[in-house]
Amino acid sequence: MPIRLLVTGGTFDKEYNEIEGKLFFKETHVKEMLTQARSRLGIEIRTIMMVDSLEMSDADRELILKHCVTAEEKKILITHGTDTMEVTARLLGEAIRDKTIVLTGAIVPYKFGSSDGLFNLGSALAFVQTLPPGVYVAMNGRYFPWDRVRKNRKTGEFEELNPGNA
Amino acid sequence: MPIRLLVTGGTFDKEYNEIEGKLFFKETHVKEMLTQARSRLGIEIRTIMMVDSLEMSDADRELILKHCVTAEEKKILITHGTDTMEVTARLLGEAIRDKTIVLTGAIVPYKFGSSDGLFNLGSALAFVQTLPPGVYVAMNGRYFPWDRVRKNRKTGEFEELNPGNA
Amino acid sequence: MPIRLLVTGGTFDKEYNEIEGKLFFKETHVKEMLTQARSRLGIEIRTIMMVDSLEMSDADRELILKHCVTAEEKKILITHGTDTMEVTARLLGEAIRDKTIVLTGAIVPYKFGSSDGLFNLGSALAFVQTLPPGVYVAMNGRYFPWDRVRKNRKTGEFEELNPGNA
Amino acid sequence: MPIRLLVTGGTFDKEYNEIEGKLFFKETHVKEMLTQARSRLGIEIRTIMMVDSLEMSDADRELILKHCVTAEEKKILITHGTDTMEVTARLLGEAIRDKTIVLTGAIVPYKFGSSDGLFNLGSALAFVQTLPPGVYVAMNGRYFPWDRVRKNRKTGEFEELNPGNA
Repeated sequence: MPIRLLVTGGTFDKEYNEIEGKLFFKETHVKEMLTQARSRLGIEIRTIMMVDSLEMSDADRELILKHCVTAEEKKILITHGTDTMEVTARLLGEAIRDKTIVLTGAIVPYKFGSSDGLFNLGSALAFVQTLPPGVYVAMNGRYFPWDRVRKNRKTGEFEELNPGNA
Repeated sequence: MPIRLLVTGGTFDKEYNEIEGKLFFKETHVKEMLTQARSRLGIEIRTIMMVDSLEMSDADRELILKHCVTAEEKKILITHGTDTMEVTARLLGEAIRDKTIVLTGAIVPYKFGSSDGLFNLGSALAFVQTLPPGVYVAMNGRYFPWDRVRKNRKTGEFEELNPGNA
Repeated sequence: MPIRLLVTGGTFDKEYNEIEGKLFFKETHVKEMLTQARSRLGIEIRTIMMVDSLEMSDADRELILKHCVTAEEKKILITHGTDTMEVTARLLGEAIRDKTIVLTGAIVPYKFGSSDGLFNLGSALAFVQTLPPGVYVAMNGRYFPWDRVRKNRKTGEFEELNPGNA
Repeated sequence: MPIRLLVTGGTFDKEYNEIEGKLFFKETHVKEMLTQARSRLGIEIRTIMMVDSLEMSDADRELILKHCVTAEEKKILITHGTDTMEVTARLLGEAIRDKTIVLTGAIVPYKFGSSDGLFNLGSALAFVQTLPPGVYVAMNGRYFPWDRVRKNRKTGEFEELNPGNA
């Protein structure tokens, strides 16, 4: 079951710049994470941007959508900053119905010892293999349909919305 | 969706004894791992043994089976040493048909920096939520039905068997 | 040989705030680091501030000086941000001649996997035990007298100055 | 100040063999550790053996002695298993008086997250730069002359002996 993995950046991939003392993006750690995971899945990785999701523009989201539409794979995983993950999920969810697309991320960079990144990557890859076509967010061990998910800004956790509130 | 998590030991939970210079079991790290994962799943954890799966007896396996049969939850995750994971999976698979049971483990202890444990735990928890009733092994990002899986002793990876070879 | 350890903050002690996505100070990790180090030294730890050294004021430095002057111990270790470590060292060096004072820090937070913090703490504790009275900076495995040290802003490393250039 | 670093193995350098599930030696991690430490010392590293110190033979110790005698550097650091560190220290201490030689090690492998290795390496490199000629063991943040040190088998820590008891 071929899987396409689109990298867009987010906390997942942030590193510590030891000269500036700030967090920044260099390259994605997804390949390194899959190696640590001893993953034997057939995954085609494509980095399409490296941005903080708070700085993701409409044009950036259109580009993600375009990549999802044109991908040959029916299973697509997207690594994404958590702050606006629900916005991108909504755009994709309204446009795509014939593929299983899962967005995931992390609230602590992979390079930090206490990151949730590997766990989230593992769960997202499992969900993308098993869920029916649709667009989902996978965080905190759970999955959420694109129209029923919200990040709780106070706790950093993802919550399910009632369909009527979405 | 309540999930029962049965801990049986395995590499997952091995620690380094700094006086003896050897690997040993103390307590499970599963709770700590779920905290690092920021998991928001309703999981009931039960440690039923702490053994290397090479030393797991028939009586041990019967005990695991009994826990699976009597659990109220329909979703059961078992952490298990990788060396005989397929043996336990077979025992459970032949006996239980109305629950989704997933066995997972690690080939590097969680306490080692390069462990595959968090990734496997994430994928196993996702598979147990989404797969239909049956018994599965989840390793290397993949899932395998109990009657079609084998650990490759040379590479340490899990492979799918043809049904006829099982 | 009793050692006084004054904590002032710096990269050493920065943590990742997973809600804000920024680095911040909570509590010092020095005790945890000494536990990991299995240190058997008699060390009296005192946190006197928790600041980025770029934001350290003259009043802050005077407070550090006061703590050094009034400490009963003849051996004092100070954890400090690297950006202005040489400024504090100079203030102390001009005022104190009867104690061995070593300043150290890190360019990557301890909580990051690739931190230089434990190494620097180990070397600084060794230098403070063995160097004659005076004020020193200990970084990159080396020690520098207070009047002959400069942080190279481009490389992040500490360099020795000729006395005439100081 | 040129430093010679002789690698002999020990817990320091043990890795986890994920196929066998056992600890073993592959290559030394000392270079990687010095990189993480951002060390700027001039160090000449030489791996002369890779053994558990419980299995170190008299011939092995004679080889270490020979390397110490013939080294051009006056400052020598030796990484060594902790179990018989005091035996090697004694052999060197009785034979060499014109060089500063420091033995260090770790009780938890560097590759484990909670290793004392980086701290010990940092302190040992500082001690070798500052202590007068003689042979020393550097562990737990302290240094011990070769004829006054013993590993406490029960606690794993190094203790100072009274000269009369040595």
